[in-house]
Amino acid sequence: MTGPELWHELGQQLRVDAVRASAEAGSGHPTSSMSAADLAAVLLAEHFRYDIQNPKSPANDRLIFSKGHASPLVYGLFRAAGAISEEEFMTYRELGSRLQGHPTPVLPWVDVATGSLGQGLPIGVGLALAGKKLDRLPFRVWVICGDSEMAEGSMWEAIEHAAFYELDNLTAIIDVNRLGQRGETMHGWDLGYYSGRLRSCGWNAIEIDGHDVEQIDAAYREAESTTGRPTAIVAKTLKGKGYSKVEDQEGWHGKAVAEEGVEELGGIRNIRVDVKQPEAGERHRFEPAPTEWPRYELGSVVATRKAYGEALAALGGERGDVVALDGEVSNSTYAEIFRDAHPERYFEMYIAEQQMVAAAVGMQVLGWKPFASTFAAFMTRAYDFVRMAAVSRATIKLCGSHAGVSIGEDGPSQMGLEDLASFRAVNGSTVLYPCDGNQTAKLVRAMADLEGISFMRTTRGATSVIYDADEAFPIGGAKIVRDGEDVTLIGAGITLHEALKAADALGEDGVSARVIDLYSVKPIDVETLREAADATQRRIVVAEDHWAEGGIGEAVLSALAGEELSFVHLAVRELPGSGKPEELLAAAGIDADHIAQAARQLVQAEAVAR
Amino acid sequence: MTGPELWHELGQQLRVDAVRASAEAGSGHPTSSMSAADLAAVLLAEHFRYDIQNPKSPANDRLIFSKGHASPLVYGLFRAAGAISEEEFMTYRELGSRLQGHPTPVLPWVDVATGSLGQGLPIGVGLALAGKKLDRLPFRVWVICGDSEMAEGSMWEAIEHAAFYELDNLTAIIDVNRLGQRGETMHGWDLGYYSGRLRSCGWNAIEIDGHDVEQIDAAYREAESTTGRPTAIVAKTLKGKGYSKVEDQEGWHGKAVAEEGVEELGGIRNIRVDVKQPEAGERHRFEPAPTEWPRYELGSVVATRKAYGEALAALGGERGDVVALDGEVSNSTYAEIFRDAHPERYFEMYIAEQQMVAAAVGMQVLGWKPFASTFAAFMTRAYDFVRMAAVSRATIKLCGSHAGVSIGEDGPSQMGLEDLASFRAVNGSTVLYPCDGNQTAKLVRAMADLEGISFMRTTRGATSVIYDADEAFPIGGAKIVRDGEDVTLIGAGITLHEALKAADALGEDGVSARVIDLYSVKPIDVETLREAADATQRRIVVAEDHWAEGGIGEAVLSALAGEELSFVHLAVRELPGSGKPEELLAAAGIDADHIAQAARQLVQAEAVAR
Repeated sequence: MTGPELWHELGQQLRVDAVRASAEAGSGHPTSSMSAADLAAVLLAEHFRYDIQNPKSPANDRLIFSKGHASPLVYGLFRAAGAISEEEFMTYRELGSRLQGHPTPVLPWVDVATGSLGQGLPIGVGLALAGKKLDRLPFRVWVICGDSEMAEGSMWEAIEHAAFYELDNLTAIIDVNRLGQRGETMHGWDLGYYSGRLRSCGWNAIEIDGHDVEQIDAAYREAESTTGRPTAIVAKTLKGKGYSKVEDQEGWHGKAVAEEGVEELGGIRNIRVDVKQPEAGERHRFEPAPTEWPRYELGSVVATRKAYGEALAALGGERGDVVALDGEVSNSTYAEIFRDAHPERYFEMYIAEQQMVAAAVGMQVLGWKPFASTFAAFMTRAYDFVRMAAVSRATIKLCGSHAGVSIGEDGPSQMGLEDLASFRAVNGSTVLYPCDGNQTAKLVRAMADLEGISFMRTTRGATSVIYDADEAFPIGGAKIVRDGEDVTLIGAGITLHEALKAADALGEDGVSARVIDLYSVKPIDVETLREAADATQRRIVVAEDHWAEGGIGEAVLSALAGEELSFVHLAVRELPGSGKPEELLAAAGIDADHIAQAARQLVQAEAVAR
Repeated sequence: MTGPELWHELGQQLRVDAVRASAEAGSGHPTSSMSAADLAAVLLAEHFRYDIQNPKSPANDRLIFSKGHASPLVYGLFRAAGAISEEEFMTYRELGSRLQGHPTPVLPWVDVATGSLGQGLPIGVGLALAGKKLDRLPFRVWVICGDSEMAEGSMWEAIEHAAFYELDNLTAIIDVNRLGQRGETMHGWDLGYYSGRLRSCGWNAIEIDGHDVEQIDAAYREAESTTGRPTAIVAKTLKGKGYSKVEDQEGWHGKAVAEEGVEELGGIRNIRVDVKQPEAGERHRFEPAPTEWPRYELGSVVATRKAYGEALAALGGERGDVVALDGEVSNSTYAEIFRDAHPERYFEMYIAEQQMVAAAVGMQVLGWKPFASTFAAFMTRAYDFVRMAAVSRATIKLCGSHAGVSIGEDGPSQMGLEDLASFRAVNGSTVLYPCDGNQTAKLVRAMADLEGISFMRTTRGATSVIYDADEAFPIGGAKIVRDGEDVTLIGAGITLHEALKAADALGEDGVSARVIDLYSVKPIDVETLREAADATQRRIVVAEDHWAEGGIGEAVLSALAGEELSFVHLAVRELPGSGKPEELLAAAGIDADHIAQAARQLVQAEAVAR
């Protein structure tokens, strides 16, 4: 069997398998799989180039199911390609199975987790950008999208960027099955709406009947031969296609359908597809060209955001696998220093933070080490992408500048005040918050080798260099910057400097303060904190330029859970306005005066207040 | 002076004022204000209808600066309209001034804070939807947008929804000044790109010279007379227009320019505009039609998500000001129960969570009480909008369903596991997590009267009703569900039921466990927690279906900061997969067995382990 007959039969097999797997599991999305089955069948049998035995091969095409709920279709493809056995196929959605409810990279043929709609295409843009500009290999990126998810703005960020960067190696296959979860989409089967919007963005758009395998094949050929712009295939399909009880019916989203569908679909098939091998090819490598690593003189001043940019540029000289992305604020985050040093490895993502993080996720699939930066406040825009990156077990490095009230006049909309809380609550994350230039540089270097999501918070204003350029800052460590016996002051970033000033003032009063620099907020240095509590009569003051919830204060309490302490937590508790940085630190009660005052009260208290 | 001469002179005044204010402050965005000055001048002088003395008048037009960094222009308009004095005008960006770096509702003429780009237009969609469907008044919504922010996907969510809902009362004014923060935008002065995209979405789009006041006036007239679809005015402008040193130059974004610009612009003017009064009009009110409040039998089972929907529908019967929005999952969140009861007050936002939250923010400006729902996991998509809503001092109610691993088979992409952390770290927020139907219903009712951002977390599976329908659940309270003396077990939502089962098992072993239902995660009931620690030998076990960071465990530690405790924190620490709910609770170590085991170890320990 070959050609259209094969494609059709394979499509039917994929439908049957979607029905079988979800019937066995008692849940899942067979109907959403059935609409896209022919689109997937023709792709697998005829166009997709992939070495199943070597999923990490740089030459492989990439396939992303942006509509991740169609996981029975994903797994059906893997079965048809011989990657997974019938036995494993039928473990769909069981505890411990690699075949989870939505695809994740627990399976080696899945590059990224999907299931939060609107993410697959932006990640595909990252893969396609890498293919063009970094790897420089002719692989293609295929993304199967749902029509419902076209309402997500992130899809249109991707569409705009793909056209701007002329990603003709990217094909979006839009499965217009008309029906969302709870009813019809905004545009139903109005294919012209989708193709019109896509064309207005500069895409090639092809409208087809998504169940006509010859039309599908022709559209894929056109996509493969179109240069200078990406192609979208806008395919009219039927949800639940092939099983009359559910076909094009509302009320069947995300529900297992009865095994009786298998019969109507012509029964179980066991077609095995030999997926075409990719063209062999070596990925491009950027040669290291080490430059001097930034070193800052003790006592000089430099903003940690500036040190981030300088260190990142130096890192890029040392390592050819480091790339940088920024959200149109590279002159604020100082990613521009990297851009100027390594323009071929810098990606301007404009004001599209979701696309920026998604592109980083795509690039890391191929082994690149992406560093993406914007204001810490605007990282909130991409929080769902960060969350999903953790499910993808992606390794990306994020930098949020302009943390806290210390930015000053720009006001609360620009102040990152929830970044520590939100990034701490990302599975497997590392959260770093340097206070000086040399520490920043060392931590940037360390980030390059970290697994998972790492986040660095930088400060807008210049701060004093307090560490020697050769000092080491292990991830998970903390520094005792000043020794003392009466009270421990804990800060990080801007508040570390306030804590040091407070310690000076306390010293004049005869109070001996230990100062701890908690530059590694997660993982946290439990031992250093315990020793400090023991050494300073269990008196601790934490000051942080962040809301009171989920940041440094709670990280410390969690590390010392259950220990008896005289504990004061200074944090931002009221909505700030504009003002000078020092005015705003004072107004928030997190400056040196407030820290010293809190410490004095702890020391003066006769008994531990409850 | 009238007509074009007035408009031109007013434009110059607004430029001069932008230069003056930011020169005085030493920071700010004069050049971004100067590009939009003529667009703003013609609007204020000729088209905008607004009672400056009564900014909350329901008849007023609404003006949103989506490009919030152009705040000197916003404040210049207020000065020209006589709302603020010259003296106050010159306090721009000072500590305590109402004229912050980016506009916030500290000023009564500012409806919502802007400054995170891409939010003003989606909020405008909310205002325009309310104008059409709720207030039913002829006011117009004008949104001044930057060209850079058109890269944000959220703008295109807004554009799609505005066309779908035929919001001809909405006008987007796009200030295409070509230059972003660090250089040119993707499309420069390609007005056709923007208007083509807008038209493909169903908008009326008009391309004009944004410094030709007569063209501007004509475009506004066309917008006012266009029916059935929104209008966008795509205006070619010059950043820094009117001052040759900075006009159309790179490197001047967000920088004060010298006072010498004032001279070139023709000096200080003091034009005072009498803004046209709006047509008088009474807003539509929905008559209350109370229905029976949901009551669940003790011992019956109901999912809290279902109780949310039923209570919301009942609340909508009691109060005509309650409205609901959902992100295309209303049959999962059960917002559909409200939709069916009150279709006129229900808004389908499709899979566009940013637009959903933004619409809620817009509606609350006009006094409506919006409840917006989606999966808790997907609330992360709108986190920047929630953050900014807090800066806006907006009152919105959000519900995230499908919390935690207890959802089961769908897998980690669908599990809200960071929602408590992220919502706790929102300024002034309330975070609620009910465990049974009656509690849910009471808390939904309480949410209606809460100020600020409130978030309710609901559970997918059905849980036993443990509270009487008449039980009270004050915000900031906690319930002692079971008394005991040996150990305190703290849970909420799904883990409260696990804690109860654990208490039963412990009782069989002769261990007397107190069980606390921490339904109000923020604010938290410090007193009840302290009493519990005192009454149960300071032994506490917290179990939560959430990551370990920033959730219930840390909230408890924060409430009991510094108290000596024997504390065990059971939370989700490894990435879950698919499985049955009870399997996943066990795998995460947060089920009854793990809680009982942790409690036994605490009780058996001779000394408090450090």
